[in-house]
Amino acid sequence: MVADKGKKMKLADKDEDHSSEHIDGELVLSIEKLQEVQDELEKISDEASEKVLEIEQKYSELRKPVYDKRSEVIKSIPDFWLTAFLSHPALGNLLSENDQKIFQYLSSLEVEDSEDLKSGFSIIFHFKPNPYFEDVMIKKSYTFPEEGEAEVTATSIKWKEGMGIANGANHKKKGKKREQSDESFFQWFKDDSDPDAINDEIAEIIREDLWVNPLAYFNQDDDGEPDSDEGGGEDDGSEEEDDGSEEEEEYDDE
Amino acid sequence: MVADKGKKMKLADKDEDHSSEHIDGELVLSIEKLQEVQDELEKISDEASEKVLEIEQKYSELRKPVYDKRSEVIKSIPDFWLTAFLSHPALGNLLSENDQKIFQYLSSLEVEDSEDLKSGFSIIFHFKPNPYFEDVMIKKSYTFPEEGEAEVTATSIKWKEGMGIANGANHKKKGKKREQSDESFFQWFKDDSDPDAINDEIAEIIREDLWVNPLAYFNQDDDGEPDSDEGGGEDDGSEEEDDGSEEEEEYDDE
Repeated sequence: MVADKGKKMKLADKDEDHSSEHIDGELVLSIEKLQEVQDELEKISDEASEKVLEIEQKYSELRKPVYDKRSEVIKSIPDFWLTAFLSHPALGNLLSENDQKIFQYLSSLEVEDSEDLKSGFSIIFHFKPNPYFEDVMIKKSYTFPEEGEAEVTATSIKWKEGMGIANGANHKKKGKKREQSDESFFQWFKDDSDPDAINDEIAEIIREDLWVNPLAYFNQDDDGEPDSDEGGGEDDGSEEEDDGSEEEEEYDDE
Repeated sequence: MVADKGKKMKLADKDEDHSSEHIDGELVLSIEKLQEVQDELEKISDEASEKVLEIEQKYSELRKPVYDKRSEVIKSIPDFWLTAFLSHPALGNLLSENDQKIFQYLSSLEVEDSEDLKSGFSIIFHFKPNPYFEDVMIKKSYTFPEEGEAEVTATSIKWKEGMGIANGANHKKKGKKREQSDESFFQWFKDDSDPDAINDEIAEIIREDLWVNPLAYFNQDDDGEPDSDEGGGEDDGSEEEDDGSEEEEEYDDE
């Protein structure tokens, strides 16, 4: 790291403007010195990144059992994830009428970060046995290796006969007033060949917003005003992340 | 934080779909329990953010004397900042011919983060006395208060007579082949009323790239290939931040 200060390079000393020809021995020494300082800064930054990652890894470990506990509690709330999805301002209209029927079999949603927290994550949907597909678990994974290209892989869903995405939008359901997608949400599991989808927005919203506080969105539906989820939910979610606001106290003081 | 588990709400138990009417005592308890778990997660996240900020503050303190040392070394390298600016793929063409003359009087550039690291930063240009403006220090500051709107303020430059931005592009300079801006870089100090400029790209590049390793860009100009700075410099910069690669060893082994 530390350069040898004894060495000197004697180069032509042309005093022209700020071009590369300006180099002389003193300048070389200054640049060497500057390189040392940069190395020092880099070392500090590397150490800081390492410490921050350690903190994040530690707290990620602390969160795991809490997330597990949360998944257990959520299982006792009928249609929790369906409701949270539908009430989310950005995810709500991604579910077609048929997707909503399928989501009634969704027993659990999980976001799993890689062990080291930096090489990727998976979004995992656990389903009860259902009339739509054979899978009880479908998954989309994003991998960011140290070297080489990012990669996305997804479960190829084994649809039961006549139930595939192409046939998805058949059973029209009454009584729902919101605008729903004609395209199936499950199309998302087919987007794994699109390099632009690597860091796709749906994954980001599920991971960084819905997963962080699904109850905030579930509760949106609870106030009896089905339209209040436009915007309000988003505000709650971002406040949640920023400063730990206490917007969901309604269950504590009844 | 911990809800009273003894309380129970008895509400109508209508078994209809996944709507809000599904609520019954057990469900209320589950949601209370879920709220507790969310509170627990939030507490963990708040603590993690606090610890990460502590780390960042600590390392920011460690960096300060090194940055000061760097500034001193840089002062002994003629036209260091001008060269680094011109060699930066994104900043290089922002300097008009006249700006380059002015930048020859730039003795020091500083990026100063707020003490707490989260409420803002300033970019400060120190100039030697020069024929262009009265100021020896001009500054642009970005403030992100806990509450309220982000703010940007900038020095209102006191141009000497006939030297203002409007008259900036007069003295044509020969021998430079790169495409230079017709607009003055100093226009940037007038952008403080534009709310979209709050987090402007120039500030971001100066703060997160040029400031982190200006030598990487200065050296770009040193290899005698004026066009190699397109892309190469950028790669170096980002590698620098990511994994501490050792791309600038050329001065250590001559």
